[in-house]
Amino acid sequence: MSDFNAAAVGAKRVLVLGGRGFLGTHFVDAFARCKIPVRIFDRRARQSLDPASVDVIDSLDDMAGASNVEIVTGDFACGEGLADALDGVDLVYHFISTTVPSTSNANPISDVQSNLIGTLRLLEMMRDAGVRRIVYVSSGGTVYGNPLTLPVPETHPLQPLCSYGIVKVAVENYLHMHAELYGLTSNVLRVANPYGTHQHHIGVQGIIPTFFKKVAEGSPIEIWGDGSVVRDYIHVNDVVSALLRAGARDQAGTFNIGSGIGHSVNEILEIVQRHIGQQANVRYLPQRNFDVARIYLDISKARLELDWQPLLSLDAGCALYWEAIRQQAGHRHAAAGNMEPPR
Amino acid sequence: MSDFNAAAVGAKRVLVLGGRGFLGTHFVDAFARCKIPVRIFDRRARQSLDPASVDVIDSLDDMAGASNVEIVTGDFACGEGLADALDGVDLVYHFISTTVPSTSNANPISDVQSNLIGTLRLLEMMRDAGVRRIVYVSSGGTVYGNPLTLPVPETHPLQPLCSYGIVKVAVENYLHMHAELYGLTSNVLRVANPYGTHQHHIGVQGIIPTFFKKVAEGSPIEIWGDGSVVRDYIHVNDVVSALLRAGARDQAGTFNIGSGIGHSVNEILEIVQRHIGQQANVRYLPQRNFDVARIYLDISKARLELDWQPLLSLDAGCALYWEAIRQQAGHRHAAAGNMEPPR
Repeated sequence: MSDFNAAAVGAKRVLVLGGRGFLGTHFVDAFARCKIPVRIFDRRARQSLDPASVDVIDSLDDMAGASNVEIVTGDFACGEGLADALDGVDLVYHFISTTVPSTSNANPISDVQSNLIGTLRLLEMMRDAGVRRIVYVSSGGTVYGNPLTLPVPETHPLQPLCSYGIVKVAVENYLHMHAELYGLTSNVLRVANPYGTHQHHIGVQGIIPTFFKKVAEGSPIEIWGDGSVVRDYIHVNDVVSALLRAGARDQAGTFNIGSGIGHSVNEILEIVQRHIGQQANVRYLPQRNFDVARIYLDISKARLELDWQPLLSLDAGCALYWEAIRQQAGHRHAAAGNMEPPR
Repeated sequence: MSDFNAAAVGAKRVLVLGGRGFLGTHFVDAFARCKIPVRIFDRRARQSLDPASVDVIDSLDDMAGASNVEIVTGDFACGEGLADALDGVDLVYHFISTTVPSTSNANPISDVQSNLIGTLRLLEMMRDAGVRRIVYVSSGGTVYGNPLTLPVPETHPLQPLCSYGIVKVAVENYLHMHAELYGLTSNVLRVANPYGTHQHHIGVQGIIPTFFKKVAEGSPIEIWGDGSVVRDYIHVNDVVSALLRAGARDQAGTFNIGSGIGHSVNEILEIVQRHIGQQANVRYLPQRNFDVARIYLDISKARLELDWQPLLSLDAGCALYWEAIRQQAGHRHAAAGNMEPPR
């Protein structure tokens, strides 16, 4: 999972907000192998899970039986259960977002209410409880808006074009303020487009799992624009290793976390088709006005200050992903009495 | 008041949110002399007014009897009365803030609730009503945080150290998003430290009126820090001329509005003492952690693109201010039967 041992974060107890989500699941998995107690805070039930992620929840519920993983449910948007979740914790990982970029503009007020005010409430509770360290997952793909230079460094102006990105910037600013005024050790990771197993909301979050699923099924793929949009895709294992390093820091900071390389949607499609060995059935739709044309991140600061680098190329990451999905499918088939994994 | 005629904004009807506040009062005064209908939206009653501003409210209430000024009351924070206020309007000036920098950190959630969500509601109502132009007063003194270079250009990173500044940045970002995605003509003025008559909340908003009042009265002045803090002070008349020019634009933009020159608190005190001809009674208090040490704005973009420049030096502006205050006091004495204006 990572070349960096989770124990190196050196916390007494870690709280993972959104520990049942995509990043949270992988992150908790990294901790499950060390002795540091981890408390997951998440909603009672996640809706519209794809079959793969149901497996994860099952495995997490198993994990909760293990000595170092505990699950607490509550509602981040209204703060319900949060004070209890913070008890005895000295490091918080904040992965919760109630919105995604593509839908956040439909209701910015609700976006601000749940994510920004939710995080302000968290910061107050952390101060009250004396919790001094937080790692926050921001958005490398939206906070910069349309980049003036590529790759984009952390010092690039922040001109987000969607509410999701504007709220991320506001949260970053409050974290910075708490670091400067109250000595909070806040580390912000501006994560590019992470991909891997257990990505929920197929079709909304993550084009790589979506493309793999649809090409394998032979179902049609819809692409906004002509497929020339360029993004920075990073395998979740590489994100987890950055998250662990960020948690081990004793200073505040902000870091781009991506591959540092741009790939077009059409390139992704080509890689997916090659790994599956099947042609996609593609329909091109009009471009969306909030989509940034080309973005990939300058990750030199994270290389230097986090002593981190991504280890998986897009091709290697996609191979790993597809292998994992085939194994999961194989296990399901095996469990159903069919010993032959599907192709 | 200004070298730029208010009629040049070329609107059918202008809505001034916060038209009874400090900037709003002066701004509406500039419009009262042209034929463009102006609608003021403000709270029912402003609290803790100093005697000078009570005069203004009286004069505005008089103005409401004039043909082109109308007053509508409501509550911006919850949107009450706002939809009616927008009726028939094609240009909005947004001067409302329910917080000030020095107190905003005490309750950031309330700051976000009233100012950010209030403005998001306004933007939705403007879209529904087809109102396509807005001028927003942001904060040149707080959005940049501790400047890396002086004077600070608009392209400087935005790293505010108080909730007031963070909310201003978030509003700016939503305005920018509406400009890019929905074609809103939004102009943002990052105004430095404006001063002039009718500044409410003596002691909280505006050190120049506060110093004049306290030195004249002989009452003690409290200064946070050693008085070396440097700010960019701009006379309200110069702000009004920038506001008029911003309203006349048909493109979106963001502009620093200041004098472009930095003055320390101790320099202000020296000027005030000289104009009054009396020594101040000063007490120096510990520095506040959210106070930026030195800031003044690079105003070259406004000079170029707004064809604007400040006309009053700090000394000339202070002279104008003190003269106006003495005249007001003279009028009050005259009305009370004492024909001799106080010194």
